[in-house]
Amino acid sequence: MKTLILLSGGIDSVTALYYTLQEHSVTAALSFHYGSKHNDQELKFAAWHANQTGIHHEIISLDFINKLFKSDLLQSGGEIPEGRYNQENMQSTVVPFRNGIMLSIAAGLAESLGAEAIVIAAHSGDHAIYPDCRNDFLLKMEAAITAGTYAGIRILAPFANVDKTEIIRRGTKLGIDYSQTWSCYCGGTLHCGHCGTCTERKESFALAGIPDPTLYKE
Amino acid sequence: MKTLILLSGGIDSVTALYYTLQEHSVTAALSFHYGSKHNDQELKFAAWHANQTGIHHEIISLDFINKLFKSDLLQSGGEIPEGRYNQENMQSTVVPFRNGIMLSIAAGLAESLGAEAIVIAAHSGDHAIYPDCRNDFLLKMEAAITAGTYAGIRILAPFANVDKTEIIRRGTKLGIDYSQTWSCYCGGTLHCGHCGTCTERKESFALAGIPDPTLYKE
Repeated sequence: MKTLILLSGGIDSVTALYYTLQEHSVTAALSFHYGSKHNDQELKFAAWHANQTGIHHEIISLDFINKLFKSDLLQSGGEIPEGRYNQENMQSTVVPFRNGIMLSIAAGLAESLGAEAIVIAAHSGDHAIYPDCRNDFLLKMEAAITAGTYAGIRILAPFANVDKTEIIRRGTKLGIDYSQTWSCYCGGTLHCGHCGTCTERKESFALAGIPDPTLYKE
Repeated sequence: MKTLILLSGGIDSVTALYYTLQEHSVTAALSFHYGSKHNDQELKFAAWHANQTGIHHEIISLDFINKLFKSDLLQSGGEIPEGRYNQENMQSTVVPFRNGIMLSIAAGLAESLGAEAIVIAAHSGDHAIYPDCRNDFLLKMEAAITAGTYAGIRILAPFANVDKTEIIRRGTKLGIDYSQTWSCYCGGTLHCGHCGTCTERKESFALAGIPDPTLYKE
Protein backbone atom coordinates (compact mmCIF):
# COMPACT_ATOMS: atom_id res chain seq x y z
CA MET A 1 0.00 0.00 0.00
CA LYS A 2 1.22 3.54 -0.73
CA THR A 3 1.33 5.49 2.51
CA LEU A 4 1.93 9.02 3.77
CA ILE A 5 3.43 9.05 7.26
CA LEU A 6 3.06 11.70 9.97
CA LEU A 7 6.63 12.11 11.23
CA SER A 8 7.28 14.32 14.25
CA GLY A 9 10.83 13.20 14.99
CA GLY A 10 9.90 11.54 18.29
CA ILE A 11 10.36 7.87 19.25
CA ASP A 12 6.88 6.79 18.16
CA SER A 13 6.66 8.26 14.67
CA VAL A 14 10.29 7.45 13.84
CA THR A 15 9.61 3.84 14.78
CA ALA A 16 6.41 3.92 12.72
CA LEU A 17 8.46 5.04 9.70
CA TYR A 18 10.84 2.07 9.82
CA TYR A 19 8.01 -0.28 10.80
CA THR A 20 5.86 0.83 7.86
CA LEU A 21 8.76 0.44 5.42
CA GLN A 22 8.80 -3.30 6.27
CA GLU A 23 5.35 -3.78 4.77
CA HIS A 24 4.37 -0.79 2.66
CA SER A 25 5.83 1.89 0.46
CA VAL A 26 6.07 5.41 1.90
CA THR A 27 5.23 8.12 -0.64
CA ALA A 28 6.20 10.96 1.71
CA ALA A 29 6.82 11.83 5.33
CA LEU A 30 4.91 14.86 6.59
CA SER A 31 5.96 17.08 9.48
CA PHE A 32 4.41 20.27 10.87
CA HIS A 33 5.92 23.41 12.29
CA TYR A 34 3.14 24.66 14.53
CA GLY A 35 5.05 26.61 17.15
CA SER A 36 5.51 24.08 19.94
CA LYS A 37 8.45 24.75 22.25
CA HIS A 38 10.24 21.63 20.97
CA ASN A 39 9.35 21.93 17.28
CA ASP A 40 12.79 22.94 16.03
CA GLN A 41 14.50 20.04 17.81
CA GLU A 42 11.90 17.49 16.70
CA LEU A 43 12.01 18.53 13.06
CA LYS A 44 15.79 18.09 12.84
CA PHE A 45 15.35 14.44 13.74
CA ALA A 46 12.36 14.02 11.43
CA ALA A 47 14.52 15.33 8.58
CA TRP A 48 17.42 13.09 9.66
CA HIS A 49 15.33 9.90 9.45
CA ALA A 50 13.63 10.93 6.21
CA ASN A 51 17.11 11.40 4.76
CA GLN A 52 18.37 8.07 6.18
CA THR A 53 15.47 6.19 4.60
CA GLY A 54 15.45 8.21 1.36
CA ILE A 55 11.85 9.29 1.87
CA HIS A 56 10.55 12.59 0.46
CA HIS A 57 9.94 14.94 3.41
CA GLU A 58 7.44 17.81 3.52
CA ILE A 59 7.35 20.30 6.39
CA ILE A 60 4.16 22.35 6.54
CA SER A 61 3.97 25.51 8.61
CA LEU A 62 0.87 26.02 10.76
CA ASP A 63 1.80 29.31 12.43
CA PHE A 64 -1.80 30.04 13.33
CA ILE A 65 -1.76 27.29 15.97
CA ASN A 66 0.84 29.09 18.08
CA LYS A 67 -0.91 32.39 17.48
CA LEU A 68 -4.53 31.41 18.12
CA PHE A 69 -4.69 28.13 20.06
CA LYS A 70 -4.41 27.69 23.82
CA SER A 71 -1.86 25.14 25.03
CA ASP A 72 1.20 25.15 27.26
CA LEU A 73 2.97 23.05 24.63
CA LEU A 74 3.11 26.15 22.45
CA GLN A 75 5.65 28.94 22.56
CA SER A 76 2.70 31.22 23.34
CA GLY A 77 1.66 29.06 26.33
CA GLY A 78 2.82 28.67 29.93
CA GLU A 79 5.41 26.37 31.56
CA ILE A 80 5.66 22.68 30.69
CA PRO A 81 4.67 20.57 33.75
CA GLU A 82 7.35 18.43 35.43
CA GLY A 83 6.82 14.91 36.77
CA ARG A 84 4.45 12.13 35.70
CA TYR A 85 3.05 11.67 32.19
CA ASN A 86 -0.63 11.42 33.15
CA GLN A 87 -3.80 13.32 32.39
CA GLU A 88 -3.87 15.52 35.47
CA ASN A 89 -0.32 16.66 34.91
CA MET A 90 -0.21 16.89 31.13
CA GLN A 91 -3.65 18.19 30.15
CA SER A 92 -2.36 21.76 29.83
CA THR A 93 -0.10 20.54 27.00
CA VAL A 94 -2.95 19.33 24.81
CA VAL A 95 -3.09 21.26 21.53
CA PRO A 96 -6.81 21.18 20.70
CA PHE A 97 -7.58 18.69 17.91
CA ARG A 98 -3.96 18.64 16.78
CA ASN A 99 -4.11 15.09 15.44
CA GLY A 100 -7.38 15.84 13.68
CA ILE A 101 -5.80 18.81 11.92
CA MET A 102 -2.66 16.87 10.98
CA LEU A 103 -4.66 13.88 9.72
CA SER A 104 -6.95 16.13 7.67
CA ILE A 105 -4.06 17.90 5.97
CA ALA A 106 -2.39 14.52 5.42
CA ALA A 107 -5.62 13.27 3.82
CA GLY A 108 -5.65 16.14 1.33
CA LEU A 109 -1.97 15.71 0.54
CA ALA A 110 -2.33 11.92 0.26
CA GLU A 111 -5.14 12.37 -2.26
CA SER A 112 -2.99 14.84 -4.21
CA LEU A 113 0.03 12.47 -4.22
CA GLY A 114 -1.88 9.27 -4.90
CA ALA A 115 -1.20 7.68 -1.50
CA GLU A 116 -3.83 5.26 -0.18
CA ALA A 117 -3.33 5.50 3.59
CA ILE A 118 -1.97 7.77 6.32
CA VAL A 119 0.22 6.31 9.06
CA ILE A 120 -0.03 7.81 12.56
CA ALA A 121 1.98 6.61 15.55
CA ALA A 122 -0.62 7.27 18.29
CA HIS A 123 -0.12 4.69 21.08
CA SER A 124 -2.00 3.43 24.12
CA GLY A 125 0.07 5.53 26.59
CA ASP A 126 -1.39 8.69 25.05
CA HIS A 127 -5.02 7.60 25.30
CA ALA A 128 -5.75 8.89 28.78
CA ILE A 129 -4.36 12.33 28.07
CA TYR A 130 -5.19 13.14 24.46
CA PRO A 131 -8.75 12.61 23.18
CA ASP A 132 -7.47 12.72 19.59
CA CYS A 133 -5.06 9.81 20.17
CA ARG A 134 -7.70 7.29 21.27
CA ASN A 135 -8.78 4.37 19.10
CA ASP A 136 -12.37 5.59 19.10
CA PHE A 137 -11.26 8.93 17.63
CA LEU A 138 -8.97 7.30 15.07
CA LEU A 139 -11.74 4.99 13.84
CA LYS A 140 -14.17 7.91 13.50
CA MET A 141 -11.58 10.10 11.80
CA GLU A 142 -10.80 7.30 9.36
CA ALA A 143 -14.50 6.99 8.55
CA ALA A 144 -14.65 10.74 7.85
CA ILE A 145 -11.52 10.71 5.69
CA THR A 146 -12.62 7.65 3.75
CA ALA A 147 -16.01 9.27 3.08
CA GLY A 148 -14.54 12.70 2.26
CA THR A 149 -11.93 11.67 -0.31
CA TYR A 150 -12.38 10.25 -3.81
CA ALA A 151 -9.73 7.61 -3.15
CA GLY A 152 -11.31 6.50 0.15
CA ILE A 153 -8.08 7.10 2.06
CA ARG A 154 -7.49 4.98 5.18
CA ILE A 155 -5.67 5.52 8.48
CA LEU A 156 -3.09 3.00 9.70
CA ALA A 157 -2.25 3.21 13.41
CA PRO A 158 0.19 0.34 13.94
CA PHE A 159 0.78 1.20 17.63
CA ALA A 160 -2.80 1.96 18.64
CA ASN A 161 -2.81 -0.95 21.09
CA VAL A 162 0.77 -0.97 22.35
CA ASP A 163 2.69 1.37 24.66
CA LYS A 164 5.97 3.25 24.27
CA THR A 165 7.91 0.43 25.96
CA GLU A 166 6.78 -2.01 23.29
CA ILE A 167 7.44 0.57 20.55
CA ILE A 168 11.06 0.88 21.78
CA ARG A 169 11.44 -2.92 21.85
CA ARG A 170 10.17 -3.23 18.29
CA GLY A 171 12.24 -0.29 17.04
CA THR A 172 15.41 -1.63 18.64
CA LYS A 173 14.93 -4.89 16.73
CA LEU A 174 14.71 -2.77 13.55
CA GLY A 175 18.06 -1.17 14.42
CA ILE A 176 16.74 2.35 15.08
CA ASP A 177 19.20 4.77 16.68
CA TYR A 178 17.03 6.46 19.32
CA SER A 179 19.72 9.00 20.12
CA GLN A 180 18.41 10.57 16.88
CA THR A 181 14.92 11.26 18.28
CA TRP A 182 13.44 13.99 20.47
CA SER A 183 10.86 13.84 23.29
CA CYS A 184 11.42 16.80 25.64
CA TYR A 185 8.50 19.25 25.53
CA CYS A 186 10.71 22.06 26.87
CA GLY A 187 12.84 22.41 23.74
CA GLY A 188 16.45 23.51 24.23
CA THR A 189 19.48 21.60 22.96
CA LEU A 190 19.44 18.72 25.47
CA HIS A 191 16.52 16.76 26.96
CA CYS A 192 15.67 18.36 30.34
CA GLY A 193 15.11 15.00 32.06
CA HIS A 194 12.31 16.35 34.30
CA CYS A 195 9.23 17.13 32.21
CA GLY A 196 6.40 14.64 31.67
CA THR A 197 7.68 13.47 28.30
CA CYS A 198 11.29 13.10 29.51
CA THR A 199 9.99 11.07 32.50
CA GLU A 200 7.96 8.87 30.14
CA ARG A 201 10.99 8.44 27.83
CA LYS A 202 13.28 7.34 30.67
CA GLU A 203 10.70 4.95 32.14
CA SER A 204 9.94 3.38 28.77
CA PHE A 205 13.61 2.54 28.08
CA ALA A 206 13.94 1.15 31.65
CA LEU A 207 10.80 -0.99 31.29
CA ALA A 208 11.95 -2.21 27.87
CA GLY A 209 15.27 -3.27 29.42
CA ILE A 210 17.13 -1.31 26.74
CA PRO A 211 19.88 1.24 27.54
CA ASP A 212 18.62 4.82 27.12
CA PRO A 213 20.97 6.57 24.65
CA THR A 214 19.60 10.03 25.53
CA LEU A 215 21.92 12.71 26.87
CA TYR A 216 19.95 14.47 29.63
CA LYS A 217 20.81 17.94 30.87
CA GLU A 218 20.94 16.86 34.54
CA MET B 1 -25.19 27.77 21.65
CA LYS B 2 -21.79 29.42 21.10
CA THR B 3 -20.72 28.80 17.51
CA LEU B 4 -17.72 29.32 15.25
CA ILE B 5 -18.74 29.83 11.62
CA LEU B 6 -16.81 28.97 8.47
CA LEU B 7 -17.24 32.07 6.33
CA SER B 8 -15.92 32.06 2.77
CA GLY B 9 -17.69 35.18 1.53
CA GLY B 10 -19.95 33.26 -0.88
CA ILE B 11 -23.75 33.16 -0.89
CA ASP B 12 -24.04 30.03 1.25
CA SER B 13 -21.76 30.88 4.15
CA VAL B 14 -22.86 34.52 4.27
CA THR B 15 -26.46 33.32 4.53
CA ALA B 16 -25.41 30.80 7.21
CA LEU B 17 -23.92 33.67 9.23
CA TYR B 18 -27.15 35.69 9.34
CA TYR B 19 -29.23 32.53 9.75
CA THR B 20 -27.13 31.34 12.71
CA LEU B 21 -27.35 34.73 14.39
CA GLN B 22 -31.14 34.26 14.60
CA GLU B 23 -30.75 31.31 16.96
CA HIS B 24 -27.23 31.19 18.35
CA SER B 25 -24.33 33.39 19.34
CA VAL B 26 -21.35 33.51 16.97
CA THR B 27 -18.01 33.60 18.82
CA ALA B 28 -16.00 34.13 15.64
CA ALA B 29 -16.12 33.81 11.87
CA LEU B 30 -13.23 31.89 10.34
CA SER B 31 -11.94 32.30 6.78
CA PHE B 32 -9.00 30.71 4.99
CA HIS B 33 -6.54 32.04 2.48
CA TYR B 34 -5.47 28.86 0.70
CA GLY B 35 -4.49 30.13 -2.71
CA SER B 36 -7.66 29.63 -4.75
CA LYS B 37 -8.00 31.88 -7.78
CA HIS B 38 -10.95 33.68 -6.19
CA ASN B 39 -9.64 33.85 -2.60
CA ASP B 40 -8.89 37.57 -2.52
CA GLN B 41 -12.35 38.49 -3.82
CA GLU B 42 -14.15 36.09 -1.48
CA LEU B 43 -12.30 37.27 1.61
CA LYS B 44 -13.22 40.92 1.03
CA PHE B 45 -16.88 39.96 1.27
CA ALA B 46 -16.29 37.68 4.26
CA ALA B 47 -14.68 40.63 6.04
CA TRP B 48 -17.49 42.93 4.95
CA HIS B 49 -20.20 40.73 6.50
CA ALA B 50 -18.19 40.05 9.67
CA ASN B 51 -17.89 43.81 10.05
CA GLN B 52 -21.61 44.36 9.32
CA THR B 53 -22.62 41.87 12.00
CA GLY B 54 -19.90 42.89 14.48
CA ILE B 55 -18.47 39.36 14.58
CA HIS B 56 -14.77 38.77 15.31
CA HIS B 57 -13.13 37.57 12.07
CA GLU B 58 -10.05 35.40 11.79
CA ILE B 59 -8.32 34.73 8.46
CA ILE B 60 -5.92 31.79 8.55
CA SER B 61 -3.36 31.31 5.81
CA LEU B 62 -2.93 27.80 4.41
CA ASP B 63 -0.30 28.51 1.76
CA PHE B 64 0.72 24.86 1.57
CA ILE B 65 -2.55 23.98 -0.18
CA ASN B 66 -1.72 26.04 -3.25
CA LYS B 67 1.85 24.79 -3.15
CA LEU B 68 1.28 21.06 -2.62
CA PHE B 69 -2.30 20.12 -3.52
CA LYS B 70 -3.66 19.35 -6.97
CA SER B 71 -6.76 21.28 -8.03
CA ASP B 72 -7.74 23.63 -10.84
CA LEU B 73 -9.39 25.86 -8.24
CA LEU B 74 -5.90 26.83 -7.07
CA GLN B 75 -3.63 29.45 -8.55
CA SER B 76 -1.19 26.60 -9.18
CA GLY B 77 -3.83 24.62 -11.14
CA GLY B 78 -5.23 24.75 -14.67
CA GLU B 79 -8.20 26.57 -16.20
CA ILE B 80 -11.59 26.76 -14.45
CA PRO B 81 -14.18 24.83 -16.50
CA GLU B 82 -17.03 26.77 -18.11
CA GLY B 83 -20.65 25.61 -18.28
CA ARG B 84 -22.69 23.42 -15.97
CA TYR B 85 -22.12 22.99 -12.25
CA ASN B 86 -22.04 19.17 -12.20
CA GLN B 87 -19.59 16.48 -11.24
CA GLU B 88 -18.19 15.77 -14.67
CA ASN B 89 -17.50 19.40 -15.32
CA MET B 90 -16.38 20.55 -11.89
CA GLN B 91 -14.39 17.62 -10.50
CA SER B 92 -11.08 19.22 -11.49
CA THR B 93 -11.90 22.07 -9.06
CA VAL B 94 -12.13 19.83 -6.00
CA VAL B 95 -9.47 20.73 -3.44
CA PRO B 96 -8.81 17.38 -1.76
CA PHE B 97 -10.43 17.18 1.71
CA ARG B 98 -10.73 20.97 1.93
CA ASN B 99 -13.80 20.90 4.17
CA GLY B 100 -12.17 18.27 6.39
CA ILE B 101 -9.14 20.51 6.85
CA MET B 102 -11.24 23.61 7.50
CA LEU B 103 -13.52 21.80 9.95
CA SER B 104 -10.53 20.34 11.82
CA ILE B 105 -8.85 23.71 12.22
CA ALA B 106 -12.21 25.18 13.25
CA ALA B 107 -12.55 22.42 15.85
CA GLY B 108 -9.20 23.28 17.42
CA LEU B 109 -9.97 26.99 17.38
CA ALA B 110 -13.48 26.42 18.76
CA GLU B 111 -12.02 24.43 21.66
CA SER B 112 -9.50 27.23 22.31
CA LEU B 113 -12.21 29.93 22.22
CA GLY B 114 -14.85 28.02 24.18
CA ALA B 115 -17.28 27.64 21.27
CA GLU B 116 -19.52 24.56 21.30
CA ALA B 117 -20.28 24.04 17.61
CA ILE B 118 -18.96 24.79 14.13
CA VAL B 119 -21.34 26.05 11.44
CA ILE B 120 -20.69 24.98 7.85
CA ALA B 121 -22.86 26.01 4.89
CA ALA B 122 -22.50 22.84 2.78
CA HIS B 123 -25.69 22.33 0.75
CA SER B 124 -27.35 19.63 -1.29
CA GLY B 125 -26.23 21.10 -4.63
CA ASP B 126 -22.61 20.38 -3.71
CA HIS B 127 -23.18 16.74 -2.78
CA ALA B 128 -22.67 15.19 -6.20
CA ILE B 129 -19.40 17.02 -6.81
CA TYR B 130 -17.64 17.25 -3.47
CA PRO B 131 -17.32 14.14 -1.28
CA ASP B 132 -16.55 16.35 1.74
CA CYS B 133 -19.84 18.26 1.39
CA ARG B 134 -22.12 15.23 1.70
CA ASN B 135 -24.25 14.54 4.77
CA ASP B 136 -22.56 11.19 5.30
CA PHE B 137 -19.18 12.93 5.49
CA LEU B 138 -20.47 15.69 7.78
CA LEU B 139 -21.97 13.18 10.22
CA LYS B 140 -18.74 11.18 10.33
CA MET B 141 -16.62 14.29 10.69
CA GLU B 142 -18.83 15.48 13.54
CA ALA B 143 -18.39 12.11 15.27
CA ALA B 144 -14.60 12.45 14.95
CA ILE B 145 -14.58 16.05 16.21
CA THR B 146 -16.88 15.26 19.12
CA ALA B 147 -14.67 12.32 20.11
CA GLY B 148 -11.42 14.22 19.60
CA THR B 149 -12.16 17.35 21.66
CA TYR B 150 -12.62 17.73 25.41
CA ALA B 151 -15.70 19.89 24.87
CA GLY B 152 -17.32 17.40 22.46
CA ILE B 153 -17.67 20.03 19.75
CA ARG B 154 -20.54 19.59 17.28
CA ILE B 155 -21.11 20.49 13.61
CA LEU B 156 -24.18 22.44 12.53
CA ALA B 157 -24.99 22.25 8.82
CA PRO B 158 -28.24 24.22 8.50
CA PHE B 159 -28.37 23.87 4.71
CA ALA B 160 -27.35 20.21 4.42
CA ASN B 161 -30.72 19.30 2.91
CA VAL B 162 -31.56 22.40 0.87
CA ASP B 163 -30.15 23.81 -2.36
CA LYS B 164 -28.75 27.22 -3.29
CA THR B 165 -32.13 28.39 -4.57
CA GLU B 166 -33.68 27.83 -1.15
CA ILE B 167 -30.65 29.43 0.55
CA ILE B 168 -31.17 32.58 -1.54
CA ARG B 169 -34.88 32.61 -0.67
CA ARG B 170 -34.15 32.34 3.04
CA GLY B 171 -31.34 34.89 2.93
CA THR B 172 -33.46 37.39 1.03
CA LYS B 173 -36.06 37.19 3.81
CA LEU B 174 -33.24 38.00 6.24
CA GLY B 175 -32.41 41.11 4.20
CA ILE B 176 -29.01 39.95 2.95
CA ASP B 177 -27.41 42.07 0.22
CA TYR B 178 -26.12 39.41 -2.19
CA SER B 179 -24.26 41.98 -4.27
CA GLN B 180 -21.80 41.74 -1.37
CA THR B 181 -20.96 38.06 -2.00
CA TRP B 182 -18.64 36.29 -4.41
CA SER B 183 -19.07 33.04 -6.38
CA CYS B 184 -16.88 33.17 -9.51
CA TYR B 185 -14.06 30.60 -9.37
CA CYS B 186 -12.01 32.58 -11.89
CA GLY B 187 -11.23 35.50 -9.59
CA GLY B 188 -10.82 38.93 -11.18
CA THR B 189 -12.80 42.01 -10.23
CA LEU B 190 -16.15 41.06 -11.80
CA HIS B 191 -17.97 37.71 -11.95
CA CYS B 192 -17.11 36.11 -15.33
CA GLY B 193 -20.67 34.84 -15.90
CA HIS B 194 -19.50 31.66 -17.69
CA CYS B 195 -17.79 29.33 -15.19
CA GLY B 196 -19.63 26.56 -13.35
CA THR B 197 -20.15 28.60 -10.20
CA CYS B 198 -21.33 31.70 -12.10
CA THR B 199 -23.77 29.49 -14.02
CA GLU B 200 -25.04 28.01 -10.74
CA ARG B 201 -25.34 31.50 -9.21
CA LYS B 202 -27.41 32.83 -12.11
CA GLU B 203 -29.68 29.78 -12.22
CA SER B 204 -30.27 29.84 -8.47
CA PHE B 205 -31.47 33.46 -8.48
CA ALA B 206 -33.67 32.70 -11.48
CA LEU B 207 -35.18 29.62 -9.83
CA ALA B 208 -35.71 31.54 -6.60
CA GLY B 209 -37.58 34.22 -8.55
CA ILE B 210 -35.34 36.88 -7.04
CA PRO B 211 -33.48 39.51 -9.13
CA ASP B 212 -29.76 38.71 -9.39
CA PRO B 213 -27.85 41.77 -8.14
CA THR B 214 -24.55 40.52 -9.55
CA LEU B 215 -22.62 42.60 -12.07
CA TYR B 216 -21.31 40.09 -14.63
CA LYS B 217 -18.40 40.87 -16.94
CA GLU B 218 -20.30 39.92 -20.09
